Amino acid sequence: MPILTLSEMAAGQEADLFLLMTSKEQLTTREGKPYFRVGFRDGTREVVFPIWDNAPWAVDCRDKWTPGAFYKVRAVYRETNYGPQLDIRKIRETCAADAADGFCPTLCLPQSRFDPRQMLDDLLGIARQEIADPAVRALVEGMLTENREALLRVPAARHNHHAFVGGLLEHTLSVTRSAIYLAGKYAEYYPEMRPPLDRSLVAAGAILHDIGKIRELDQRPEGTTYTAAGALVGHLLLGRDMLREAAARRAPTEGWSLAPEALLRLEHLIIAHQRLPEWGSPKPPMTPEALIVHYADDLDAKFSMMVAILASDTNPGPVTSKKNVLMQHVYRGEVATE
Amino acid sequence: MPILTLSEMAAGQEADLFLLMTSKEQLTTREGKPYFRVGFRDGTREVVFPIWDNAPWAVDCRDKWTPGAFYKVRAVYRETNYGPQLDIRKIRETCAADAADGFCPTLCLPQSRFDPRQMLDDLLGIARQEIADPAVRALVEGMLTENREALLRVPAARHNHHAFVGGLLEHTLSVTRSAIYLAGKYAEYYPEMRPPLDRSLVAAGAILHDIGKIRELDQRPEGTTYTAAGALVGHLLLGRDMLREAAARRAPTEGWSLAPEALLRLEHLIIAHQRLPEWGSPKPPMTPEALIVHYADDLDAKFSMMVAILASDTNPGPVTSKKNVLMQHVYRGEVATE
Amino acid sequence: MPILTLSEMAAGQEADLFLLMTSKEQLTTREGKPYFRVGFRDGTREVVFPIWDNAPWAVDCRDKWTPGAFYKVRAVYRETNYGPQLDIRKIRETCAADAADGFCPTLCLPQSRFDPRQMLDDLLGIARQEIADPAVRALVEGMLTENREALLRVPAARHNHHAFVGGLLEHTLSVTRSAIYLAGKYAEYYPEMRPPLDRSLVAAGAILHDIGKIRELDQRPEGTTYTAAGALVGHLLLGRDMLREAAARRAPTEGWSLAPEALLRLEHLIIAHQRLPEWGSPKPPMTPEALIVHYADDLDAKFSMMVAILASDTNPGPVTSKKNVLMQHVYRGEVATE
Amino acid sequence: MPILTLSEMAAGQEADLFLLMTSKEQLTTREGKPYFRVGFRDGTREVVFPIWDNAPWAVDCRDKWTPGAFYKVRAVYRETNYGPQLDIRKIRETCAADAADGFCPTLCLPQSRFDPRQMLDDLLGIARQEIADPAVRALVEGMLTENREALLRVPAARHNHHAFVGGLLEHTLSVTRSAIYLAGKYAEYYPEMRPPLDRSLVAAGAILHDIGKIRELDQRPEGTTYTAAGALVGHLLLGRDMLREAAARRAPTEGWSLAPEALLRLEHLIIAHQRLPEWGSPKPPMTPEALIVHYADDLDAKFSMMVAILASDTNPGPVTSKKNVLMQHVYRGEVATE
Amino acid sequence: MPILTLSEMAAGQEADLFLLMTSKEQLTTREGKPYFRVGFRDGTREVVFPIWDNAPWAVDCRDKWTPGAFYKVRAVYRETNYGPQLDIRKIRETCAADAADGFCPTLCLPQSRFDPRQMLDDLLGIARQEIADPAVRALVEGMLTENREALLRVPAARHNHHAFVGGLLEHTLSVTRSAIYLAGKYAEYYPEMRPPLDRSLVAAGAILHDIGKIRELDQRPEGTTYTAAGALVGHLLLGRDMLREAAARRAPTEGWSLAPEALLRLEHLIIAHQRLPEWGSPKPPMTPEALIVHYADDLDAKFSMMVAILASDTNPGPVTSKKNVLMQHVYRGEVATE
Amino acid sequence: MPILTLSEMAAGQEADLFLLMTSKEQLTTREGKPYFRVGFRDGTREVVFPIWDNAPWAVDCRDKWTPGAFYKVRAVYRETNYGPQLDIRKIRETCAADAADGFCPTLCLPQSRFDPRQMLDDLLGIARQEIADPAVRALVEGMLTENREALLRVPAARHNHHAFVGGLLEHTLSVTRSAIYLAGKYAEYYPEMRPPLDRSLVAAGAILHDIGKIRELDQRPEGTTYTAAGALVGHLLLGRDMLREAAARRAPTEGWSLAPEALLRLEHLIIAHQRLPEWGSPKPPMTPEALIVHYADDLDAKFSMMVAILASDTNPGPVTSKKNVLMQHVYRGEVATE
Repeated sequence: MPILTLSEMAAGQEADLFLLMTSKEQLTTREGKPYFRVGFRDGTREVVFPIWDNAPWAVDCRDKWTPGAFYKVRAVYRETNYGPQLDIRKIRETCAADAADGFCPTLCLPQSRFDPRQMLDDLLGIARQEIADPAVRALVEGMLTENREALLRVPAARHNHHAFVGGLLEHTLSVTRSAIYLAGKYAEYYPEMRPPLDRSLVAAGAILHDIGKIRELDQRPEGTTYTAAGALVGHLLLGRDMLREAAARRAPTEGWSLAPEALLRLEHLIIAHQRLPEWGSPKPPMTPEALIVHYADDLDAKFSMMVAILASDTNPGPVTSKKNVLMQHVYRGEVATE
Repeated sequence: MPILTLSEMAAGQEADLFLLMTSKEQLTTREGKPYFRVGFRDGTREVVFPIWDNAPWAVDCRDKWTPGAFYKVRAVYRETNYGPQLDIRKIRETCAADAADGFCPTLCLPQSRFDPRQMLDDLLGIARQEIADPAVRALVEGMLTENREALLRVPAARHNHHAFVGGLLEHTLSVTRSAIYLAGKYAEYYPEMRPPLDRSLVAAGAILHDIGKIRELDQRPEGTTYTAAGALVGHLLLGRDMLREAAARRAPTEGWSLAPEALLRLEHLIIAHQRLPEWGSPKPPMTPEALIVHYADDLDAKFSMMVAILASDTNPGPVTSKKNVLMQHVYRGEVATE
Repeated sequence: MPILTLSEMAAGQEADLFLLMTSKEQLTTREGKPYFRVGFRDGTREVVFPIWDNAPWAVDCRDKWTPGAFYKVRAVYRETNYGPQLDIRKIRETCAADAADGFCPTLCLPQSRFDPRQMLDDLLGIARQEIADPAVRALVEGMLTENREALLRVPAARHNHHAFVGGLLEHTLSVTRSAIYLAGKYAEYYPEMRPPLDRSLVAAGAILHDIGKIRELDQRPEGTTYTAAGALVGHLLLGRDMLREAAARRAPTEGWSLAPEALLRLEHLIIAHQRLPEWGSPKPPMTPEALIVHYADDLDAKFSMMVAILASDTNPGPVTSKKNVLMQHVYRGEVATE
Repeated sequence: MPILTLSEMAAGQEADLFLLMTSKEQLTTREGKPYFRVGFRDGTREVVFPIWDNAPWAVDCRDKWTPGAFYKVRAVYRETNYGPQLDIRKIRETCAADAADGFCPTLCLPQSRFDPRQMLDDLLGIARQEIADPAVRALVEGMLTENREALLRVPAARHNHHAFVGGLLEHTLSVTRSAIYLAGKYAEYYPEMRPPLDRSLVAAGAILHDIGKIRELDQRPEGTTYTAAGALVGHLLLGRDMLREAAARRAPTEGWSLAPEALLRLEHLIIAHQRLPEWGSPKPPMTPEALIVHYADDLDAKFSMMVAILASDTNPGPVTSKKNVLMQHVYRGEVATE
Repeated sequence: MPILTLSEMAAGQEADLFLLMTSKEQLTTREGKPYFRVGFRDGTREVVFPIWDNAPWAVDCRDKWTPGAFYKVRAVYRETNYGPQLDIRKIRETCAADAADGFCPTLCLPQSRFDPRQMLDDLLGIARQEIADPAVRALVEGMLTENREALLRVPAARHNHHAFVGGLLEHTLSVTRSAIYLAGKYAEYYPEMRPPLDRSLVAAGAILHDIGKIRELDQRPEGTTYTAAGALVGHLLLGRDMLREAAARRAPTEGWSLAPEALLRLEHLIIAHQRLPEWGSPKPPMTPEALIVHYADDLDAKFSMMVAILASDTNPGPVTSKKNVLMQHVYRGEVATE
Repeated sequence: MPILTLSEMAAGQEADLFLLMTSKEQLTTREGKPYFRVGFRDGTREVVFPIWDNAPWAVDCRDKWTPGAFYKVRAVYRETNYGPQLDIRKIRETCAADAADGFCPTLCLPQSRFDPRQMLDDLLGIARQEIADPAVRALVEGMLTENREALLRVPAARHNHHAFVGGLLEHTLSVTRSAIYLAGKYAEYYPEMRPPLDRSLVAAGAILHDIGKIRELDQRPEGTTYTAAGALVGHLLLGRDMLREAAARRAPTEGWSLAPEALLRLEHLIIAHQRLPEWGSPKPPMTPEALIVHYADDLDAKFSMMVAILASDTNPGPVTSKKNVLMQHVYRGEVATE
């Protein structure tokens, strides 16, 4: 029996799948017929369907299946008026041996199109190349390395953009590239600035601007929620904490000296990167470096939202619905209607 | 010769004064006559007047007098169409011996009507009595003690309210008293709350809510400005830093254990106490304790503004001008026009 | 058969209940099966359930049962997937004799936890003690007495806070206590105010600030709605009308003299107590007395909202949903998740 | 010697004038030369000029001249770089006999271009003709008659529009005409409305919408200020008070019966006519009648502002400055630059 | 068999109808029973009902019926708990011969109560009479004539007001009448304006203010959507384009000369008529003419919304729900509850 | 005698200068001494100083000197308390022969640091290289060429940013470079977009986004003002007009075919590039291409503002004043205080 992903299955096809159970609700039809509505997903798609009271899996579903657990499932894939469903033939929890067949829990969550390890390497490479100040460079490299495991996983946001495994890295890499380009350009345009535009600071700030997401978000198989500190304090302040802790930890031991002014500017850059108070920034960007990172970040988030809206909206006519994260119509154009 | 304060002097009276020079500007009349406009103040009043080019003090003024320095001045006090002026007879910088005559630099700045030392003692007494949790109590007492010198001096704001020596203490004491009253009342009204309303947390939060002003403001004889960190990060975050540093410093050495949950709620209370994002709070009050401290704080600030507006506005008619910090008319009433 | 309240019943238990019918809708299932969805409540809980077409009560339900009427019901209490339901055995409208068994229509509505009569007495006691000006005191006492019946009943708002029998009194009593504390404190802090802070006015204003709710809201068994005047004019203006009418009525007959200035300040306090124009206040608080009452009122409303949100929200994780009357997350905390 | 108005005088001409003294300030030049700056006006223009210390009128100016008093002045009119000035030859307070020469105090204030008595007659004529409901008509006629003296004088606003004697009448007449036209038109367009559009109500509401200005503004020779009630309560509520008092006064004595519903709708119309809460309306227009009056009123105010801006702005180029009451550029056009 | 409209049919009656099919959705009941939900409408009403799988029309419905097509239907009209339904006896697409029985596709859409041809004639008559400037008059007449077919059809908006065939004409005619009245009145009140108020411009602007709707909206039998240009550019700019194109087209050929200043003022009037930037106007009204048209337009739209809300809202109590296009309560009054 | 620019002159130095007269005001001192205040500038600096009544140039100044005219001036440069002044020795209007000495009127205005001709060539080079669609490329090249003279001169804004000769080109070039970089990056990141990201459109849109400034601004020697069309319609719409006119003009004659879809997207990009309605955009960016150009434009404007604020602010302390075009503090940093 082939091992497939959900998006690879054709209607009527039978295959084995490694799936994460995402939800289980006990419901009753209006006529009083009890049933469970269950959800399963892998990295490519999610399906939600009923397990009827008289179905063969009804007892197991009620007593054993657990949201957040991983299963090896043999099933026939069906297209119905309620969307895709699975006709389950066999099901068991995954075990260690399944790794040999390519199972990995993380793969059951939506994924960045890019390899997280490669993205983290790219980011480290950029840090080494673009941050001229050795103290800042060591700080940034250290933080990326110490938070490696979390960085490989964490999304950039719960829902709005890059809400998938590796999303924070994908977003950060894109923002960093834009910010470095823009810093280079403006440093060249305005050579008379005093102090000169600090390209090291822009690169470091872009890399670290969202690092607090690691403490803000709690990414679990069954869904991403806020941590207590994330809810009460937020990622801007938590990211600044991580920076200050890393700076304090390193200072005495490593022999290099991070200028207090550079640290302060970097702290500011992190807390100001959302710019508007209603988006959570207690201060607007007050340095040219913070201004650049804000724009690079904001465009990247908005652009990815627009791409996602264009990919998923099914409104008829030349524009999408305005019920989306941007709260506006997006133009789909003539091409898209063909 | 008597030693007086500026507010004690009558028109035409001569006396000795201990004064802070607040400003010195070199100007020229339209006719080309050069002169200096100088400002002097003590804790009771400020006077600004010209030193003409041909006046006896012209050379000393230009070469020796320095804004920010303190002087013993013998002068005749004059009321003129340009406001009060000093006709200087003798002037010298203050010296150590002047302390015997009651001189103290701080006394040349505007003062709280209350004795800062007494206010700090009151605050410590409240902390000891109202904070039941020993770890929180030790933390608050420690922070008050370690920051004693700064607390005795710092204003609550640069301009808007309690902008004088001891202002932070005066404001904090008032907010704390209100917050403790309100916490007691609501704990009694809503005994069923789970977790119960934490009165220790309210008292600690009220005492610490503005502690970051110590790092935000740089109070000098010639005027209060923002520090670099104050400008780029702000007192909400700086106050939270002070709290976290104090908690980290104490934890290992003193044998008591501050619950992480209590620390987090206290951090939140500090950063949320301004409530609105446009006032700098990255999060609104999300706990009942933070809600109480916000209201106690906001009323105290607004009430003191209204008192100050009523005391200083000279608009004719039953209401003040609306050009004030509240940006609205305040009603002066019939009584005030008698 | 025991007489119980809804909240006292266990699943499967049979008992007699005094209930208010709150709703009756005629519906049809998708299969064309007609039924009624009916609602019943007492002071402790509301249940909503179907009466099927072929059920024994179908004809009575259609022809006789009336929303807004009170019934004595014998029923078995059932817990179902659609929530609690009643399996009705006997049902008749209440009659005078039921009073002997403790029936009282008001008891079928949600209630304040405090006894309205006691609260009104407390409020009168406060008025007598805290209002030094005899004319203001007589006015306030008179208004409380004349509106006694309404005050014992009326909620503080339709939905947002204290939306239950006695809610206006409960809210008013709490606001008045806070306002008196705060007025006392600030009168002591700012003895130099001219005119001095008027504590009588604060107490009177706090007691009367929401009195217009009596004319704004129409509290009926089947739900609270706005009166025509409530909709077109609102409780701020209606409360001021009640004050002016009471002052005009009393003036000639009772021999005391209410100062026009005091009346005007009290009128202002009522219309300004919501502070913001978008909350309906045509003027912001322009006197220190109005400022105090606004803050005491606003905190009391927001605090009770937060308590209610914490008590009812069922969102998983450390914070509540933000779909609530405060439109923000509230922190539930670690304790609550145990 | 001819008796002229200020606007009739040519540079260098000597004449007698009846003038109101509007201001007197004691100032000193930078060189210490004391002088008075005095202002005089009549209905056509205001002039402000110095009375030097050594001028013949210096002593009289200091000791006798009083802002708010009226004078008969013989003077030569001069055009200077500081604007028009008067070279006073003779001056005395006006006396009863001056009436024979056409003096009237009101004429020294800026005037409507229309005769207030005629405007009031027109308004009464409209009321009689357009208000079909006899009770409403009697109420409106009564209020216009009882407030005759105030109506003949009061401006429509302190500064923003129609800020001159008779301004309230001029504005009210224009609003009423527009509102009646619009009500007629929409009654015809929407004959199916239930209740039908009430043209009597629109006419009455338009006539009374700003009547509260009479109690809000205190118009004195030296300038218009707010009354205490105007400041604390505002003209919307004061106008509604006047309406309710008039209705209460009449009801028992005159034998007609004003429908409570009509009174309530009229009250609403008055308090809602500014529409937006930030403009002081506690409720938006909630009836079609209130909607019409709001638009007729708002257009009339904005139109008169635009006319005044076009008449007075001296900005070069095709648009006016945006420092005006509309806070926007107004287009002057090509024609105006000829 | 009689030919009726939907609104003429009584429950149980059988008749022939000319109907537009508006929707067809394939659905399945929870029990897995497939069915179609279909919608049909004529100019008076819309009905939506199921065609069950086993019904006689099931196959035709699936294979032949097409939303957007017109049908002659013989059916019995039923009132059910799900609203009105049709029990179809015969059905065929309309053909040319049906015109003889009065069929016209446009009549199947909701209609203005007024005859579009008559309204267009009225508008042309107004243009000829009220526009004194011959070049402007010719321009307006030309545009009305060239766009005759579209004008007879297009609604004034997709949903908010006048959303029916002829709606744009109905709205435009009403706005134009109001604007002409107001322009006449203000020209008379302010004869001193320079340049004088241009009544031709007001009339032309009122007639053309919404002409861009013709290019913005795509009105099809199955519903009105935005065109691509409508979505990306909007009717204000598209209307200005139509004006400029018409002016450019005419200029060389017809011998008259449109003043560039008049054209520019007319362009401004069109793009400014919504006044607020958040409503899409890039500039506020900057001329008196534009101000008048804005107010006439805004009142007409709001008035028609309020009429529609009052006609359709079913909320109990004296006010409507606030879930409507005005987002506020509207007062229904005592009359309406009888 | 050397020919210098104002910024090259030292105090007390005498030289010849080519200057533009920028202002002439007739004033009088308080003592009645009449004088003229005159302003002269070249591309490097502006000086404003008095010409006293008894000075040798008084008569010429009054009778002959004209703001907006150019002069060859021999003068001694003085530093005074009122700022730099010129002690004029000789003065005459410039003549054709002065070109030989390097005089050029444009050089008397503030200049871009870059050569306008070179910038325009760069822009054309970019257009040729980056716009793949031949029709779009020809359109853009044509518009740049046809508007060459204006482009070489026009500023990017009246005051806020790039307010100097060549400013529009400098701003456009920078925006275009950023936009092209960003478009390239996102095209690579999101290859799955349908339609794919149109890099030609981004480049064309960036080049043309502000082209309407040419019709909006009237740049004269004496200052930049709005044209009538600029005031009434604005540069967004005027730029779209220029685009549409160029497209219409070319279409029939040049044999290439611009896709209507491409033209519409480009129109949208121009009118949407300010994003927010309160900044004048009637539509937000609704295409990915428009989003990119908006961000590139907004960052470039804000960055140049911040650079200018840092260069000119003289506030003491670590931050600038907040009275600047960004209405916020900008951090100057420790470096700047050395």
